[in-house]
Amino acid sequence: MTVKVMHWGLGAMGGQMAELIATKKGITSVGAIDLDPNKVGKPLGEIFEGQTNDVKVSDDAKKVLSEEADIVIIATGSFTEEVYPLVEQALNSKKNVICIAEEMAFPAQQQPKLAKQLDELAKENNVTLLGTGINPGFVLDLQIIALTGVCYDVQKIEAARVNDLSPFGPTVMKTQGVGTSVEEFNKGIEDGSIVGHVGFPESMAMVAKSLGWELDEIKETKEPIISNTHRKTKYVEVQPGMVAGCKHIAYGIKDGETVIKMEHPQQVLPETEGIDTGDYINIFGTPEVSMAIKPEIPGGIGTVSVAVNSIANVINAEAGLVTMADLPVPAAIMGDIKDRLKK
Amino acid sequence: MTVKVMHWGLGAMGGQMAELIATKKGITSVGAIDLDPNKVGKPLGEIFEGQTNDVKVSDDAKKVLSEEADIVIIATGSFTEEVYPLVEQALNSKKNVICIAEEMAFPAQQQPKLAKQLDELAKENNVTLLGTGINPGFVLDLQIIALTGVCYDVQKIEAARVNDLSPFGPTVMKTQGVGTSVEEFNKGIEDGSIVGHVGFPESMAMVAKSLGWELDEIKETKEPIISNTHRKTKYVEVQPGMVAGCKHIAYGIKDGETVIKMEHPQQVLPETEGIDTGDYINIFGTPEVSMAIKPEIPGGIGTVSVAVNSIANVINAEAGLVTMADLPVPAAIMGDIKDRLKK
Repeated sequence: MTVKVMHWGLGAMGGQMAELIATKKGITSVGAIDLDPNKVGKPLGEIFEGQTNDVKVSDDAKKVLSEEADIVIIATGSFTEEVYPLVEQALNSKKNVICIAEEMAFPAQQQPKLAKQLDELAKENNVTLLGTGINPGFVLDLQIIALTGVCYDVQKIEAARVNDLSPFGPTVMKTQGVGTSVEEFNKGIEDGSIVGHVGFPESMAMVAKSLGWELDEIKETKEPIISNTHRKTKYVEVQPGMVAGCKHIAYGIKDGETVIKMEHPQQVLPETEGIDTGDYINIFGTPEVSMAIKPEIPGGIGTVSVAVNSIANVINAEAGLVTMADLPVPAAIMGDIKDRLKK
Repeated sequence: MTVKVMHWGLGAMGGQMAELIATKKGITSVGAIDLDPNKVGKPLGEIFEGQTNDVKVSDDAKKVLSEEADIVIIATGSFTEEVYPLVEQALNSKKNVICIAEEMAFPAQQQPKLAKQLDELAKENNVTLLGTGINPGFVLDLQIIALTGVCYDVQKIEAARVNDLSPFGPTVMKTQGVGTSVEEFNKGIEDGSIVGHVGFPESMAMVAKSLGWELDEIKETKEPIISNTHRKTKYVEVQPGMVAGCKHIAYGIKDGETVIKMEHPQQVLPETEGIDTGDYINIFGTPEVSMAIKPEIPGGIGTVSVAVNSIANVINAEAGLVTMADLPVPAAIMGDIKDRLKK
């Protein structure tokens, strides 16, 4: 048996997943759904390195899903409401699903009703549904949970993901407010055009649930990172006094105290102010655990890898909606993925 | 329902587990087996802080195991052959088992026949058997595997656990060769009285299996750490030129090349020579991932925590012999452990 994958969404993330899967043994792409007229009708191999010419990109989801496959990877949006109809359709075709929508990492937090429906739907169809990605899905949740595993008890968790947005283009610059004035930034936060990080409530909820903490409240703040330096990338220029990015912080509050604090300042060229990019986790408990990954795990490669490396875990899992905290850790696939399958 | 635990072995590790469990909700100790005449016959609560006086330590394993419990924690030795009869007896009493013997973290590596028998025995009795601890079980295996999960591919892994043996007493000083001359050290390695770290083959095998690498060979070297400084602890004094500990290194070799290198130099007071203790993992692949936990996760607390925090995962797991790579990550128990149980 070879693991058969269908791709739903062939943008930056979905496309790189198709290319990564093409390099792995025991797994093959058997279907591809996308609405981009530049892709529809073309063989995967014409668009993605190493991919097969036997599969053509289709905009007809129903037709593609009528064929047999083990798993569908959905990479089309960030929000549960947005991807819900796609996930529903894929589950109803009796296929396991991995979805990289940020909110799907723990959909019960912001969409408890939809999460319940998806869980029931997955169970009815005897398949498994996982939401994952680098963050949420790994850095500020799974990695934190694992590190609490070495502790007698935990009083407080502080974690930060400090990255550099330099490689990203105009869209990301806009949604993070890079290059704006402070006034423009504040307006952008108000009207929702500057969004910061999507996924804090999900990461918070995953950590709290795993430990058995009941949070009273999750608070989020988004502030402009005002640059003291001149910062210039291919896509943007930031003068001193202008905004270099968005400092997004989330607080998980229990009995009136912050027990989880997560920071994700996203900006261009933080090193111009002597700031090291990295993923940082500090567990205050017995013992204290202080972890640093420097530089930070890259977001794009990380999301693509975590999703693809979770495929066998999802196929092996019991039916229903699961999170990364319910599955074995993902591992890079260096052999034949079939060796990972239980059945 | 309350999770019922039996303790088999109440030395330093087993005793701390009994104390930790006494602080947690939804779990209770219902049996205790130990051969130490200073403990036999005494109520647990007389020996271990917070424990119950309703359970007396017994040297009659058969009798204790004839009572009902969900899980037995075995903390009596380091080697599979040594703990095998105990594990067998616990499994045959139809109880799940967690064993902290280092070799039991991946018993198939050095004792494939015994591992197969234990797997069959667990399945026959419809219970789960896990070997775990901080290392092997977490630092140089589970943590490495998880970090490869963010990678497209991995060419090489280098990891080190650099610790300070200062808190440990005469037994550990002896087994690591601390305070010996180089000549005595080499003699100790030869006659087996200086052992270094137990668990490299197990960690290597767990990582390799998770990634899908077939190692040709695992090589180990043990060298004296010759001190340049004067080092003095409560239990030992090391003059310059004498041995401060054992530098134990393992190499996982594939197609003639080292693809996994693990170092575990164990010594007293490494900071006298400017060495930072810590757990370090470097994944060479796409992307490169460089992680540091400073100082290192403490061995004793870590082993006790990982074992206790894995209890619900083991009860939830399918029957058979499993490793940490087969289960969800452990998490500190801050709520009621019953909330973690599936059934």
